[in-house]
Amino acid sequence: MLNATHSPQLQSWVESANQPGCDFPIQNLPFGRFRRDEHEQARLGVAIGDQIVDLLACLGAGVLPELEPALVAACGSITLNPLLALGPAAWSSLRAALSQLLSSDSAVYQRNPQIGKRILVAQSEVQMLVPMEIGDYTDFYASVYHATNIGSMFRPDNPLLPNYKYVPIGYHGRASSIVASGQPVRRPHGQLKGPNDDQPTFQPCRLLDYELEVGMVVGPGNQLGQPIPLAEAEQHIFGLCLVNDWSARDIQAWEYQPLGPFLAKNFITTISPWIVTLEALEPFRCAAFERPADDPAPLDYLASAANEQHGGIDLTLEVYLASAQMREQGIEPVRLSRGSFRHMYWTIAQMLTHHASNGCPLQPGDLLASGTVSGPDKDARGCMMELTWRGAEPLELPTGETRRFLEDGDEVILRGSCSAPSAVSIGFGACRGTVLPAL
Amino acid sequence: MLNATHSPQLQSWVESANQPGCDFPIQNLPFGRFRRDEHEQARLGVAIGDQIVDLLACLGAGVLPELEPALVAACGSITLNPLLALGPAAWSSLRAALSQLLSSDSAVYQRNPQIGKRILVAQSEVQMLVPMEIGDYTDFYASVYHATNIGSMFRPDNPLLPNYKYVPIGYHGRASSIVASGQPVRRPHGQLKGPNDDQPTFQPCRLLDYELEVGMVVGPGNQLGQPIPLAEAEQHIFGLCLVNDWSARDIQAWEYQPLGPFLAKNFITTISPWIVTLEALEPFRCAAFERPADDPAPLDYLASAANEQHGGIDLTLEVYLASAQMREQGIEPVRLSRGSFRHMYWTIAQMLTHHASNGCPLQPGDLLASGTVSGPDKDARGCMMELTWRGAEPLELPTGETRRFLEDGDEVILRGSCSAPSAVSIGFGACRGTVLPAL
Repeated sequence: MLNATHSPQLQSWVESANQPGCDFPIQNLPFGRFRRDEHEQARLGVAIGDQIVDLLACLGAGVLPELEPALVAACGSITLNPLLALGPAAWSSLRAALSQLLSSDSAVYQRNPQIGKRILVAQSEVQMLVPMEIGDYTDFYASVYHATNIGSMFRPDNPLLPNYKYVPIGYHGRASSIVASGQPVRRPHGQLKGPNDDQPTFQPCRLLDYELEVGMVVGPGNQLGQPIPLAEAEQHIFGLCLVNDWSARDIQAWEYQPLGPFLAKNFITTISPWIVTLEALEPFRCAAFERPADDPAPLDYLASAANEQHGGIDLTLEVYLASAQMREQGIEPVRLSRGSFRHMYWTIAQMLTHHASNGCPLQPGDLLASGTVSGPDKDARGCMMELTWRGAEPLELPTGETRRFLEDGDEVILRGSCSAPSAVSIGFGACRGTVLPAL
Repeated sequence: MLNATHSPQLQSWVESANQPGCDFPIQNLPFGRFRRDEHEQARLGVAIGDQIVDLLACLGAGVLPELEPALVAACGSITLNPLLALGPAAWSSLRAALSQLLSSDSAVYQRNPQIGKRILVAQSEVQMLVPMEIGDYTDFYASVYHATNIGSMFRPDNPLLPNYKYVPIGYHGRASSIVASGQPVRRPHGQLKGPNDDQPTFQPCRLLDYELEVGMVVGPGNQLGQPIPLAEAEQHIFGLCLVNDWSARDIQAWEYQPLGPFLAKNFITTISPWIVTLEALEPFRCAAFERPADDPAPLDYLASAANEQHGGIDLTLEVYLASAQMREQGIEPVRLSRGSFRHMYWTIAQMLTHHASNGCPLQPGDLLASGTVSGPDKDARGCMMELTWRGAEPLELPTGETRRFLEDGDEVILRGSCSAPSAVSIGFGACRGTVLPAL
């Protein structure tokens, strides 16, 4: 439901938030965690323009006087987890309070036009951290385009496995190697075995790839043994971020049978620093993926009219790459792909409900990633493996360099943004990582 | 290295610890976490006979006066994690102090023969909890017998995949559904599809199974990007416990391709409440699995003479089952299998080193499970799937009941114990769970 916080008329007294094309207008208000230097205790913040609203400073300044005690405690916490546990009504009331505080007609601002000096900090001056303690990380495989592309490289006659259109396929990832945007990505070692090799050798990965994904941050969650019905699923999703599921394709090919990817994926996963709330995404909701007529309907526990009509999110996703040579020559990052999250075969609600359908407990701060977001068009493929068709069709960069997979020094930048006719556009900020040579 | 804490001559003033067949003689001293009732804050304890040494009470009574401050803090903590982070030298000095405190010639006991009233609590009076906060849980597949048995059911011509003898195969499990022994096991719902079904249906699992595994509790661990050499691996393993990796075979069969098991496993995992330290296991170390002559040698990063000679653990593992009918008739649990952890294809050090070989950070409290422990003999098969050969050879219980898989009301009990000619035998305590009907 749209409310006053979504109004396109709203402007902020933080001038940078009103600039066209800004990722963080007052209609967005995504949550993150930061510190000014390594010795400072982490604190929570909300992005506005090129600034951050420091929530601890807001409490100190008394500019959020209407919050209930649990929200006050959550705002003063060092991770997002206590806020995540409170659920949608609390999230919404905090959003409303922040929207009021930051709007051009804010009573606080009108009483004290210098209030920004007390509660704002420039985004350029802080280090962003992973916003929450992530208990468990799950990675889905929800793009039928990605699954079909990858499948057709390995099984040309039978690209999509028979379970795909019934089961929102997912597997567990590694929480301990999730890092915030900007942290460098060390090329991992691993066992590699080419088709003509007698035996594997342990050496640096050669086929390093990125994967463009969307992450869901779990809210209250469920008790062990208690499923979450589809109708309630979105009450357990605080918001979304971008995820780069860095992948070592050669390690993956050799290790993944029969239990799935392991060391090919768990050396690092990068997430964007701002969690864009589901409430902020409300103007950009759309119908779920329209299944072709001969596809099976989802089983009952994954089906509802509301999900079908409103379960999708029209979130535009882009990948950029800058090689070391490009940076040296002052060339801007080049766009590799552009797609939309609306093309996912399964909605965020379906993924969450499926995950809890056996009683598996989801907890505040858990991260569920969507799997690589690829779309129907060739330029909407969300990883290099697909874009270069396993290296067969190399990409050319503006410097004349070519890429089959990532080289040392390459920076990968994921971006996400939402636009709709009667809404102010919002963005996710960047999710960045630069490849370092193997140790 | 054996030291004074291993001496077979050692006896304890806690009489129950000196009984033959006791799991917890003074040579064991495993760590756990407990509370007397639901309102009490959890605390750490060490099993001795049928009692628990309450570490917080020991600090209060001043009976561990020689500990360094970090160890004092760790003993007073509400989880095992701070102790795990301290590493082997600290673990060893705490063990030595506890061994002295509890030995028959303890100076503390001789000064005050009533000291037990202050620092002991009966195991029968407490609730045991999962001892540590588990950041990430990994499950390996390290028994070549299990892998071959399972593989031959699905691929009779090619039971063992080509990577098996090179890669300690593992995958990520779910940390949030790990529970302590005794918690009931709700039969999960999931998508099932028989070979003759047109499409899957969502219903209670029919082919519920247990898996007998051994868990390794991670100590200090490594930083992101930094591998752990094989020679240092055991410095990062605090100790072992028993793990029941409950499995829904029918959900697994339909969901597991291509990314591995997910909802078939993450509805619950039970661990035994006591972590038996590697130091306590020292008298029971043995050679690693002897690879057949035509098996490849492990790659260099997984090979060392020390690992080959001393990397195994002769830990006897047993599974018992009691049906509801057996309990009603007063019939003791029946043993389903008996094997040894020494038959694992990969050692605990190899599993840990492989896991960190790509720089994946392991953290204090992480749990690495071995995968189902099956041995060369038919009665050493560690799950029902293998014992009944996928249901084809049902087991008969003393009541005349038969089992292809687990029925509601069945209690599964895992036990582990170590014996050696010149050592006092030690045990792991029981890992129990009873199946409840689906919701």
